[in-house]
Amino acid sequence: MVLARVVGTVVSTSKVPQLGGIRFLLVERLDAATMKGTGDHVVAMDSVGAGPGEVVFYVAGSSSRLTPVTEGRPADATITAIVDEVEMNGTTVYRKDAS
Amino acid sequence: MVLARVVGTVVSTSKVPQLGGIRFLLVERLDAATMKGTGDHVVAMDSVGAGPGEVVFYVAGSSSRLTPVTEGRPADATITAIVDEVEMNGTTVYRKDAS
Amino acid sequence: MVLARVVGTVVSTSKVPQLGGIRFLLVERLDAATMKGTGDHVVAMDSVGAGPGEVVFYVAGSSSRLTPVTEGRPADATITAIVDEVEMNGTTVYRKDAS
Amino acid sequence: MVLARVVGTVVSTSKVPQLGGIRFLLVERLDAATMKGTGDHVVAMDSVGAGPGEVVFYVAGSSSRLTPVTEGRPADATITAIVDEVEMNGTTVYRKDAS
Amino acid sequence: MVLARVVGTVVSTSKVPQLGGIRFLLVERLDAATMKGTGDHVVAMDSVGAGPGEVVFYVAGSSSRLTPVTEGRPADATITAIVDEVEMNGTTVYRKDAS
Repeated sequence: MVLARVVGTVVSTSKVPQLGGIRFLLVERLDAATMKGTGDHVVAMDSVGAGPGEVVFYVAGSSSRLTPVTEGRPADATITAIVDEVEMNGTTVYRKDAS
Repeated sequence: MVLARVVGTVVSTSKVPQLGGIRFLLVERLDAATMKGTGDHVVAMDSVGAGPGEVVFYVAGSSSRLTPVTEGRPADATITAIVDEVEMNGTTVYRKDAS
Repeated sequence: MVLARVVGTVVSTSKVPQLGGIRFLLVERLDAATMKGTGDHVVAMDSVGAGPGEVVFYVAGSSSRLTPVTEGRPADATITAIVDEVEMNGTTVYRKDAS
Repeated sequence: MVLARVVGTVVSTSKVPQLGGIRFLLVERLDAATMKGTGDHVVAMDSVGAGPGEVVFYVAGSSSRLTPVTEGRPADATITAIVDEVEMNGTTVYRKDAS
Repeated sequence: MVLARVVGTVVSTSKVPQLGGIRFLLVERLDAATMKGTGDHVVAMDSVGAGPGEVVFYVAGSSSRLTPVTEGRPADATITAIVDEVEMNGTTVYRKDAS
C-alpha cells in the first residue's frame, strides 16, 4: 500500500454507471522518510471517509475492489485506511494529532 | 485512477476479434498540480463518449474490463469518467466550462 | 494499451509447456508525440501476425490472456492490434502506408 | 518479488473492516547489488512475523492475497519471506547472521 | 515479458507455507539493445531450471502463477523461458552458445 495525503477532490457527472455514488479523492504520494509530498497524484476511491489533509494509505490493483464501498467497481486505487502514526527506525515520523 | 486529457485517436483494422467496435483514444497523463500534460501517452478504451481535449480519468489493470463497453475485452486502460472539476488544497484547479 | 514498434524476435526452446507454439516478439515502446522509440523493450506475445517494423499496440497485465492465441498462457504483454493510423491534436502523426 | 528491509510500522484505527488484525510494516526497497536502501518505501502486510531491520522480500499485486494471513484482504504488497542469504555472481552479498 | 539474466539466488527458511519447495533466483533486467544489465533486480521464481548467467525472460503479475511449478503460489515474477536467441533489427544481438 502507498502512503499519501488527501489534497483534493475530483467531480464527474458523465461516468460509467458503476461509478455512481463513489467519492473521488485526489491524493498525493508521500516520501515516507520526510512525510512530504512527492508531486505524484492519483485519483482514489474513498472507502473510509477520509478528509482533506489527512494522511492515508491506498491499495492499488485488483485489491482496490475488495472493500464494501468499491466491490464490483472499476477501481485501481482505493483509500483503505486513515493513518494514525508512522514509525521509522525507532522514531515517530508522523502522528495524526501532532500534524 | 489517472487524470489525463484526450489528445487523439488510434485506428486499427488488423486486431483481435475482442477489440471489435471499441474506440481507442490517445490520452496524455496530466500533472494534477498544473493540469498540464506530462508527455506520457496511453491508448485507452473509451466507455463514456469522451471527445478531443476533454479531461478524463482512466482506470488501469483488470478493472478496465468492468464497464458495459469493455467487459470481456483485452483492456488495460479504460476511460471511465469525464471530469467536471478538480479541486486541490481548496482551489479549483480545473473546471470543465472554464477550460 | 501501449504504442510500440516490432523490432525483433526472441527464441526459446527451454520453456514452460504453456508457452508452446507462441511467437515472441521484441517490441520497443514509442513516444506518441514523435512516434520514435523510447529505448524501452518488452517481450510480447503475438496474437495478430505482426511483422518487423510494424507499429502495434500491446495490452499488459491479466488482459493479455484474453485473446484466442494467449488464453490460459502465462502472458503479461500481448500485441492485440496492428496500428493503421495515429492522430494527435488534429494531425496525423502516423499512417501505416506512409511509413 | 522485491528485496526490502523492514524499517518501521504504520498504525491505523480508521480502516476498512477487511484490514482488522493485520500488521502493517513500512519497508524500504533495497538495491540488490549493494543491499542498501533505495529510499522507496512501501506499506506491506506482514505474513511471516518480520521484525525491524530484517531483510525480507514481498510480493506485489493479486498474489499478495495468497497467504493464510492476507486471504480476501485488500492487499497489494505482502511480506512472504524473511531472507537468510543473498548470493550474487558467486559472492554472498547478504547473510542474516552477519548483518 | 522481460529479458533478464540470472545473477544469483535468494535463500529463505522463514516464509509462508505456499513458498515451500520453490527456487528463488535473483535476476537483473537487461537492456535489449545492448544485452547489458540495467542494475534493476527482481526475485523471481524458477519454473524452467535456469542457471547462473543464463539469459531468460520472466512474466510478471497474475500470469506468474500459470506454470506447473507456481500454480497457487504467491508469485509476482516467474522465469518461464531460457532464451536461445534475440534478434533485433535483423541482427542477432544474443545467441546462447556464443555468450
